[in-house]
Amino acid sequence: MSSGDNITGDLSQDDSYDLDRKLVVQILDAVEQSDQQALTELLENLHAADIADLLEQVDAGDRARLIRLYDREFDGEILSELDESIREEVIETLNPLVLADAVREMESDDVVDLLEDLEVPQQEAILEALEDADRVAVEQSLSYPENSAGRLMQREVVMAPEHWNVGQAIDYMRNSEDLPDQFYHVVLVDPRLHPIGNVTLGRIMATKREVPLTELVEDTFQVIPADQDEEDVAYAFNQYHLISAPVTDGEGRLVGVITIDDAMIVQDEEHEEDILRLAGVGEESSLADRVIETTKRRFPWLAVNLVTAVLASLVIAQFEEIIAEFVALAVLMPIVASMGGNAGTQSLTVAVRAIATRDLTGSNVWRVIRREVLVGLVNGVIFAIVMGLVGLAWFGSPILGVVIAVAMVVNLVVAGLAGTVIPVLLEKAGIDPALASGAFVTTVTDVVGFFAFLGLAATVLL
Amino acid sequence: MSSGDNITGDLSQDDSYDLDRKLVVQILDAVEQSDQQALTELLENLHAADIADLLEQVDAGDRARLIRLYDREFDGEILSELDESIREEVIETLNPLVLADAVREMESDDVVDLLEDLEVPQQEAILEALEDADRVAVEQSLSYPENSAGRLMQREVVMAPEHWNVGQAIDYMRNSEDLPDQFYHVVLVDPRLHPIGNVTLGRIMATKREVPLTELVEDTFQVIPADQDEEDVAYAFNQYHLISAPVTDGEGRLVGVITIDDAMIVQDEEHEEDILRLAGVGEESSLADRVIETTKRRFPWLAVNLVTAVLASLVIAQFEEIIAEFVALAVLMPIVASMGGNAGTQSLTVAVRAIATRDLTGSNVWRVIRREVLVGLVNGVIFAIVMGLVGLAWFGSPILGVVIAVAMVVNLVVAGLAGTVIPVLLEKAGIDPALASGAFVTTVTDVVGFFAFLGLAATVLL
Repeated sequence: MSSGDNITGDLSQDDSYDLDRKLVVQILDAVEQSDQQALTELLENLHAADIADLLEQVDAGDRARLIRLYDREFDGEILSELDESIREEVIETLNPLVLADAVREMESDDVVDLLEDLEVPQQEAILEALEDADRVAVEQSLSYPENSAGRLMQREVVMAPEHWNVGQAIDYMRNSEDLPDQFYHVVLVDPRLHPIGNVTLGRIMATKREVPLTELVEDTFQVIPADQDEEDVAYAFNQYHLISAPVTDGEGRLVGVITIDDAMIVQDEEHEEDILRLAGVGEESSLADRVIETTKRRFPWLAVNLVTAVLASLVIAQFEEIIAEFVALAVLMPIVASMGGNAGTQSLTVAVRAIATRDLTGSNVWRVIRREVLVGLVNGVIFAIVMGLVGLAWFGSPILGVVIAVAMVVNLVVAGLAGTVIPVLLEKAGIDPALASGAFVTTVTDVVGFFAFLGLAATVLL
Repeated sequence: MSSGDNITGDLSQDDSYDLDRKLVVQILDAVEQSDQQALTELLENLHAADIADLLEQVDAGDRARLIRLYDREFDGEILSELDESIREEVIETLNPLVLADAVREMESDDVVDLLEDLEVPQQEAILEALEDADRVAVEQSLSYPENSAGRLMQREVVMAPEHWNVGQAIDYMRNSEDLPDQFYHVVLVDPRLHPIGNVTLGRIMATKREVPLTELVEDTFQVIPADQDEEDVAYAFNQYHLISAPVTDGEGRLVGVITIDDAMIVQDEEHEEDILRLAGVGEESSLADRVIETTKRRFPWLAVNLVTAVLASLVIAQFEEIIAEFVALAVLMPIVASMGGNAGTQSLTVAVRAIATRDLTGSNVWRVIRREVLVGLVNGVIFAIVMGLVGLAWFGSPILGVVIAVAMVVNLVVAGLAGTVIPVLLEKAGIDPALASGAFVTTVTDVVGFFAFLGLAATVLL
C-alpha cells in the first residue's frame, strides 16, 4: 500500500484533529523494530483519546505488539477511551500489573464504565486491583440499573447547607482536603440532604462574602433521579443547557452529580445508536469488529428484509399472467416501489428524529400526519406526470402512462402516511421506532406499490 | 380530536421531560378565551426551552394568538430557543417594543445566532434595538464566517498573566466588576495575549494562595482558531472532553472562549444533519415547516431516485424477452435488488458515521473495505442458500434456484464494496458522504442486482 495511493490519503478535506498518517506509520515502524524508546517518544504528546483511536485503527496483531511494547506507559485514561469492541482484547493483552496500576489511576465512574461491558472473570480481576474504598464505590454504582443516571454520576459532590453565605462557602472549599478535580457548582441542600439549588463557582467568585448563597442560585435547576434513563439525562442537559445536575436516590437525597461532559458522550452514543438502527445495523458495531461479529450484527435486518421482499414477490406473483402479456409492466414496476420506499424513508426519518427530540407529541401528531400525506400527494402528482410521460414515450401506451401515474400518487401518499403513523405506533408500543420502522414502512410501500400498479394494470389492460 | 384518542396520547413510554398534554390543552384554552392572566400563570413555571417547544408544536394561528396575548412577558430566551423554521414568523408577530426589549436581554452570542438566519430588514431592526457596545460586539462576531468558531464563541473571557499565583487570581476575580455569569476556567496568557493554559476554578479554590497558576494548568489544552468549522469544534470537545477552550485570531491572540454547552448544541445539530441527509431529507427541515417547504426539500432526492430507478428499469428492459418467457424472473428479481440495497445501506451508514467520527482513515480503509466485502460474501452465501431453496420450492426449477443464489452473492459483495468505497471517495472529493452516498450505492446495487440475476438467467435458461 503506497502512500501515494489515492484512497489511503488523508480522508477529510480539512484534517484538523485527524490522526496524522505519517505519525501512524512511524509508530508502526517503532513497533515493528521493537524500539520501545522511539514508541514512547512518539506517543508522549498524543492525548489518551488519540492513542485509543490509534489502537482501534491498527490491526489486531499490531495492536497486541504495540501494547506489549508500550508496557508500563499504558495508562488508565487510554482504557476509558477505548471502544467497547476491543476493550476485552486489550485487557487480555495487558500485563496484569500494568492493568492493575492503570485501573487504580482511573476515576470511579470511568471504572464503572469499563467494568459494565466485561465478562465476570475480568470484572473480578479489576475489582481486586482497586483499593477498598474505590471498590465499594464502584460496586455501589454497579447496583444501579444499566444505562441509568446512577451509573453515569460521579459520587464526589461539593455541597453546602442552604443557610450558608458566600464567605462560608469559600472558606469551606479553601480548607477542604479533597475537592474533585472538576466541579462547576456548589449544590445547596436542606437538612435532609435534599438538593434545593445550584450556585456556580463563577457567581461565588464574583459576589461579596456576606451574601447568602440562596440569593445566587441559578434559575434553571433540574434534579435527576438516579434511576432515570441516561437518554433522558442527555435530553435534559441539551434542552435546559445544564452544566451539572444533582442526582437523588428514591428518598430525594443527594447521592451524586452528573456533569455535561458525560451527558455529551451519552448524546453522541444515542445518536450513533439511532443512525445505525435506522440503517439496520446492530447498534454496538464498530470499525474494529471482525468479519464474524459484523456478519452476525447485519444478518437479522437482512433476514427481515428478505421476508418483506418475499412478501412483495408474492404480490407480484398474483399478476404473472398480465406480466407475461405486457412485459413493460415488469420493467416499470420497480420504479413505483422504489419511489414509495424512498418517500417512506424520508417521512419515517423525520418522525423518528422528532420523537427522539420530543418534538412530535400528542399535540401535533395529527397535523404532522396531514402534512406528510399532503407532501406525498404533491410530490406524487409531480412524479406521476413525469413518469406518465416517460411511460407513454417509452412504450407508446397512454393507458400504461395513466396506470403508472395513478400508482405513483397512491404509493407516495401511503408512504407519507405509513412513514409517520408506524414510528408513532411503535413508540407507543414501547418498541424503538429507529429499530423497526424501516422494515414495516418499506414492506407497506413495496406491497402497495406493486399491488396498485399491477392491480390497476390488470383492471384496465385485460 | 378527543383526548382518549389512541394516537394523540403521550407518545413516549416514559414521559420525563415531555410537555404535559393537559397543560398544553389548558394553555390553548386560555389563548382561545383571551385570558391573559391564566396564560401568564400557566407559562410561569415553564422553562423558555419548553415554551419554545410549545410554540413549535401548536399551529400557526394558535401561535400568533398566544404570542400576542403573552405580549410583554415574552422574553429573549424564548427567541433563542425557537427553531429556525418559525423564528421569522414569530419575530414578525411580536410587538416591536417587546422584540426590542427581548433582544436587549439576550447574551451577545445568542443575538448572533438569532440574526444569522434572518432577512436583512429584520436583522437591521434588531441591530438597532441593541445598545451601541452590544451592537459592535454582534457585528464583529458576524464578521467571522458562518458556522465558524468565531460565531460560536463568547467574547467575555476571564484571563490572567502567566506569572500570577492563586492568591492574585482570586483577588482579581473577587474585585472584578463584570465577570461572566458562566465560566469554568481562568485562561493564562503570555504578554502577547497568546493563551498558554487553562486553570479550572475548582483547582484555584482547592489550592494555597502562593502556588503559581502555571503549576495548576490542565493536561489537556486545545486552542481553537476563530475560523475553524464548528463541526471540528464539537469534535474536539467530544474527543478531548473539553469544558471550555480559548479561541484565537489569525495572530494567535485570545479573542474569546467556547464552552461545552455550545459545543453540545453543535454536536446535536450535526447529528441531525447527518441523519436527515442520509434519509434524503433537506437538513433544515423541521416539524413546523409547511407543506410547500417540506415538499420542496423532499423533492430533489426523490428526483435523483427516479433517475436511478429508471436506470435500473433500462437494465430490466434489456431482458424483456426472457422475462416474457419465464415470468418467475419478474417475481423474483426485486428480491435480489432489495437485499443488495439494504446491505449497501448498512455498509454506507457505518462508513459515513466512521468518517464523521474520524475512525475511518487512510490507515484502516483497506482493512475496512476487505471486511465489508467478506461480510457481504458470508451473508450473501447464507441468503443465497435460503433463496435458492425458496426459488426451487416455489417454481420447481433447480436452475432458477442456482441463478438467484449466485446473483445474491454477487450483489451482496458489490454492496459491501460500494457501500464503503463510495462514501470514502465522496469525502475525498469534498462532497458530504451523508448527502450523496445513498443515491450512488442504491444505483449500483439495483443495476448490479437486476443485471446479475437477469443476465445469468438469460445465459443458462435460453
